[in-house]
Amino acid sequence: MTRDTTSRGCVLALDVGGTKMSLAAVDRQGGILHRNVIASPARDPEKMLSSLLNLVSGGVESCRAAGLEVEAVGIAAAGFILQQDGLLLESPNIAWSMVPLRDLVAKAAGLPVFLENDATAAAAGEHFAGAARGVNDFVYLTMGTGIGGGAFTGGRINRGYRGTAGEFGHMTLDPTGPMCGCGRRGCLEALASGTALRRDAVRLASRDPGSLLYRQCGIDPAAVTGETVSDAAERGDRAALGAFDNVGYYLGLGIVNLVHIFDPEMVVLGGGMAGSGHLLMDNVRRVVAERGISCLVRDVTIIISALGGDAGVIGAAATAWEGIENEPAK
Amino acid sequence: MTRDTTSRGCVLALDVGGTKMSLAAVDRQGGILHRNVIASPARDPEKMLSSLLNLVSGGVESCRAAGLEVEAVGIAAAGFILQQDGLLLESPNIAWSMVPLRDLVAKAAGLPVFLENDATAAAAGEHFAGAARGVNDFVYLTMGTGIGGGAFTGGRINRGYRGTAGEFGHMTLDPTGPMCGCGRRGCLEALASGTALRRDAVRLASRDPGSLLYRQCGIDPAAVTGETVSDAAERGDRAALGAFDNVGYYLGLGIVNLVHIFDPEMVVLGGGMAGSGHLLMDNVRRVVAERGISCLVRDVTIIISALGGDAGVIGAAATAWEGIENEPAK
Repeated sequence: MTRDTTSRGCVLALDVGGTKMSLAAVDRQGGILHRNVIASPARDPEKMLSSLLNLVSGGVESCRAAGLEVEAVGIAAAGFILQQDGLLLESPNIAWSMVPLRDLVAKAAGLPVFLENDATAAAAGEHFAGAARGVNDFVYLTMGTGIGGGAFTGGRINRGYRGTAGEFGHMTLDPTGPMCGCGRRGCLEALASGTALRRDAVRLASRDPGSLLYRQCGIDPAAVTGETVSDAAERGDRAALGAFDNVGYYLGLGIVNLVHIFDPEMVVLGGGMAGSGHLLMDNVRRVVAERGISCLVRDVTIIISALGGDAGVIGAAATAWEGIENEPAK
Repeated sequence: MTRDTTSRGCVLALDVGGTKMSLAAVDRQGGILHRNVIASPARDPEKMLSSLLNLVSGGVESCRAAGLEVEAVGIAAAGFILQQDGLLLESPNIAWSMVPLRDLVAKAAGLPVFLENDATAAAAGEHFAGAARGVNDFVYLTMGTGIGGGAFTGGRINRGYRGTAGEFGHMTLDPTGPMCGCGRRGCLEALASGTALRRDAVRLASRDPGSLLYRQCGIDPAAVTGETVSDAAERGDRAALGAFDNVGYYLGLGIVNLVHIFDPEMVVLGGGMAGSGHLLMDNVRRVVAERGISCLVRDVTIIISALGGDAGVIGAAATAWEGIENEPAK
């Protein structure tokens, strides 16, 4: 690497979500120098795109005004992405279809742009500046409404042939299990996501009028959020703890499968549910030890992401830094 | 690559199994120049080792007598192997435990030696000289008494942190499913291996006295072999076809999981059951199309290994050629 690491270089890192878009200027060490967040007009594809382009252009100007040299733009977005083509095929929470996002942003910003699925980017972010810094073989799972992920093997992110690798949430764990958002049964996402946690909590509370959750929320499923379940579990509520037990069991089984498949040194858990990580971790580690093949699972470290809410922008930054090092600019 | 490919160089490739050991001299194009097969004294660890060392020494002498220059030895063996340490931890069918196989062979042969798990080696063999030649992202499954495998991502074999990656047979597909040889429930191996095929065939035949399998084998499970089930299925027997349907369903589900995880261009099926591949393939392809996420599975090619019974030695040869190119000799 011949790049001058003493210059005030940075990349612009953009985390594109259905609720908000976060932009950050990030240096080569993963330090966040500058930040901007705007709401996502996610239902209006044209407005969503023009807001995004304005956000990036404004970010480039702000950086230059502050004496920072912007070297590239990295974009992390939810959805199926053809990384090499810079094309967003579809996104679960944004009314976009077949958007050539990389080239549109490159034209507007006059900079090389690298586009990545948000979960793959977050895995790259853990390697760049998070829990897996210096770890060459690890599996990353992001757990929120859905479950996504990414794997590093031999120090490189696995993108796959088309760039859609890492759909760990759609690993079937029980062919007769509950329906998943993808239309299939018994996916890890249907059994161990935030959505599954709430569903299990409602089911357990509705059978247990003495539980705290029932007394708080009655039988109204809409009143049960991830936060109410976490809070009730923190206070020892049996319905909420039961829901965490169920989710931890299936998350543990999913991790066992991934350890048998990848033989990682480490498994990193991120996303919104990682904030309730301590409610899950004991159970997950127990299930992995009990249900895994001993000589394959016993030395694997399972930890919670160090990046929290910055996983998206740090991931986008990692994608951009990796991109300008490894590929010709586009 | 500066190696002179016009010289008469070869590697010695050794496939170590519980029944026999096969040795072959293999050139850089995957051509087999010379071959020797001996029985494995698998229950006597000392005798097994001395037979192996004699086989290799004899192979080196035969090659030299024929004017071939032996550049390295590649060994593919069943079991858990620490590839970087050249250590065989344990093997399912050989009375070996903690054998430093690489260094023992290197000392006896005076050559660099590279040791690999047999399924990982077979995946490397498919890339070297089989169905996946020129394919950088593929998943390989070997189906026999058990199920093993290996994955290539970005042109490299995934070995994992300790070298035990690719245990696809021990992916849980149904936590309440039948017991697996590993002591856990509902592994792919317990649902879709040759062992599972025979178990399902016995179960279906025992309920169906009109079936060909029942008339041939009665209720004696020992009389039902992989061959009898295949033969009966070829003749249209409903019990045997039902067993192939069950196995194909779970194999299809396992492949869906691996496609969602790796995003491969191709899935290659090898091992003893691949000989009955046509009885499985229609069902497997249908299950993958129906049970996978359409935009992730629709362009994936699923094919049968081109190497047949040579998968072991070609895999060992691929391991040796890769080893002398990428690593300092050991």
